[in-house]
Amino acid sequence: MAESDVERTGGPRPPAGQQAASQPIVVAYKSDPVRGAVWSAVFRSELPQASFHMWPEIEAGEEVEYLVAWVAPPDLERVLPNLKVLFSIGAGIDQLNLDAIPPHVTIVRMLDPDLTRGMIEYATFAVLALHRDIPHYVSDQQASRWSYRPLQRAEERRVGIMGLGVLGQALAESLKFFGFPLRGWSASPKTIEGVETFSGPEQLGAFLSGCDILVCLLPLTEDTRGILCHATFEQLPKGARLLNAARGGHLVEDDLIAALASGRVDCAILDVLQSEPPAADHALFKHPRVMITPHIASATLPQAAAQRVCRLIERHRSGLPMEGVIDRRRGY
Amino acid sequence: MAESDVERTGGPRPPAGQQAASQPIVVAYKSDPVRGAVWSAVFRSELPQASFHMWPEIEAGEEVEYLVAWVAPPDLERVLPNLKVLFSIGAGIDQLNLDAIPPHVTIVRMLDPDLTRGMIEYATFAVLALHRDIPHYVSDQQASRWSYRPLQRAEERRVGIMGLGVLGQALAESLKFFGFPLRGWSASPKTIEGVETFSGPEQLGAFLSGCDILVCLLPLTEDTRGILCHATFEQLPKGARLLNAARGGHLVEDDLIAALASGRVDCAILDVLQSEPPAADHALFKHPRVMITPHIASATLPQAAAQRVCRLIERHRSGLPMEGVIDRRRGY
Repeated sequence: MAESDVERTGGPRPPAGQQAASQPIVVAYKSDPVRGAVWSAVFRSELPQASFHMWPEIEAGEEVEYLVAWVAPPDLERVLPNLKVLFSIGAGIDQLNLDAIPPHVTIVRMLDPDLTRGMIEYATFAVLALHRDIPHYVSDQQASRWSYRPLQRAEERRVGIMGLGVLGQALAESLKFFGFPLRGWSASPKTIEGVETFSGPEQLGAFLSGCDILVCLLPLTEDTRGILCHATFEQLPKGARLLNAARGGHLVEDDLIAALASGRVDCAILDVLQSEPPAADHALFKHPRVMITPHIASATLPQAAAQRVCRLIERHRSGLPMEGVIDRRRGY
Repeated sequence: MAESDVERTGGPRPPAGQQAASQPIVVAYKSDPVRGAVWSAVFRSELPQASFHMWPEIEAGEEVEYLVAWVAPPDLERVLPNLKVLFSIGAGIDQLNLDAIPPHVTIVRMLDPDLTRGMIEYATFAVLALHRDIPHYVSDQQASRWSYRPLQRAEERRVGIMGLGVLGQALAESLKFFGFPLRGWSASPKTIEGVETFSGPEQLGAFLSGCDILVCLLPLTEDTRGILCHATFEQLPKGARLLNAARGGHLVEDDLIAALASGRVDCAILDVLQSEPPAADHALFKHPRVMITPHIASATLPQAAAQRVCRLIERHRSGLPMEGVIDRRRGY
């Protein structure tokens, strides 16, 4: 929807912070309207004291304290001057322009169990598919080839996870069952049982040198943009395999094409691309050793996400801390 | 290799059962020679008192008490008259012609942990791929389509496993992690925690009616040949998904093609076909909603398999029971 669709009433603007916990809760929702209908129904039953408005049908923007959105309107401060909390509808917040969000607005990312479960299903599928040569077999089927590749034991296939937050830790838990030796890399040091951990730019090389399968689950920040690049691929063992289930911006696509050509990277599964949908003749979309899915690894199911936001608003009204608050300096 | 390659010495034939535990252990191996070299090395180090012969280089067939093979020679009783145990190199024994194996020969199937692990990796990959619409996305990628399909929660996707032996039970254990409601069907009644179990032909319909994903891990016997047929598909929920990781003989391929056309079956992953390799223009090989892999779900890794057979031979020499002995009446 065009941002110019937003209509504002010209009513008087109350001073920020004047509302008490007993005052009405005004929530605006700015995302897909079909899913919005589910959100609206959940709010009616779970937080009936709130008034829930679907963007752009906001009568009094200055009354809105809570916004649920994938992207914020560029003139956020003007249309919702008393906004207190912005709930991102995704696990990441890289789609938000933080500069356009006033510093007093708290940003909360989506941490719903369905989002984690969806990602774990997908990433477990993809790691097993890379381990078992499935991108090759998909191409073989298309070419009417029937050709067996020797098995490798999971114990001899080291899986490295970039990003050790909620998603990365849950994936490690899932992969343990199969016996893969696990390692992980994150910006700050972490300790996870059964995972050899590395952190910071200075340990990236040591981490990469032991990744037979490299999985990217990082948040997209200025530090991680383009991290899946030539220099990274060159530090992997020859014939390594790649899964990017994070953001298209993590991958330098031309560098992957070169690494596939040189054999440094044997095959890849990508759920995200720089530009979505990709051009029909995109080199990775047509590559015989690359499987691509259309950004489906994980999605917020509206029912559970709306219930979670109802609980978080209640906590916020009561002055309690909320889970998932973004640290703007880190960017996640 | 042709069976006529077998050479026999004409030496005197000792009465069966005359050898004592202290007598030499003579083992013959009749399968892929590359893997056979690994077997030979393992026997040298782990059971040095045995003499290990690669088929067809058998000097004295009447001395052979143990045979490791995928298929037995048709004239088994003549060439190895004192054979005591036949170790199948696969998890199933349907490749063996039981009528050509004298009744006093004990048949042992392969139960090595690698075989189970390989199958669990593959079947977990395939169930997750069916759950997450991967056969559709593979076709979409080939057609340069970028089209999102709504997610379904694992809790709402019932997975039914046909065959509740070692492999079926291990798969159930793996799938529990993801929250799929699990059911299972087997010839004789079984109780497995967290799995709703059904047995026998009379409970097959009740089982099938709740399988959103149907997984076949059955042994191939006269009772199970062609069990994945029109009548079975008609009892599944509309839009069910199929994984056959057992044997090509379980599936009536034309019935699957019809069920895909009617929409009764939405998509399928097949690791086995009636005829392998299939003809290049085989209708399933080219079907846009079928993923096919070339019989790779699981394979015995020779090192571990040979170690296991060494242990079993020691047990047999000591009069101890062996794990994996086939019940010829049941056929598995």
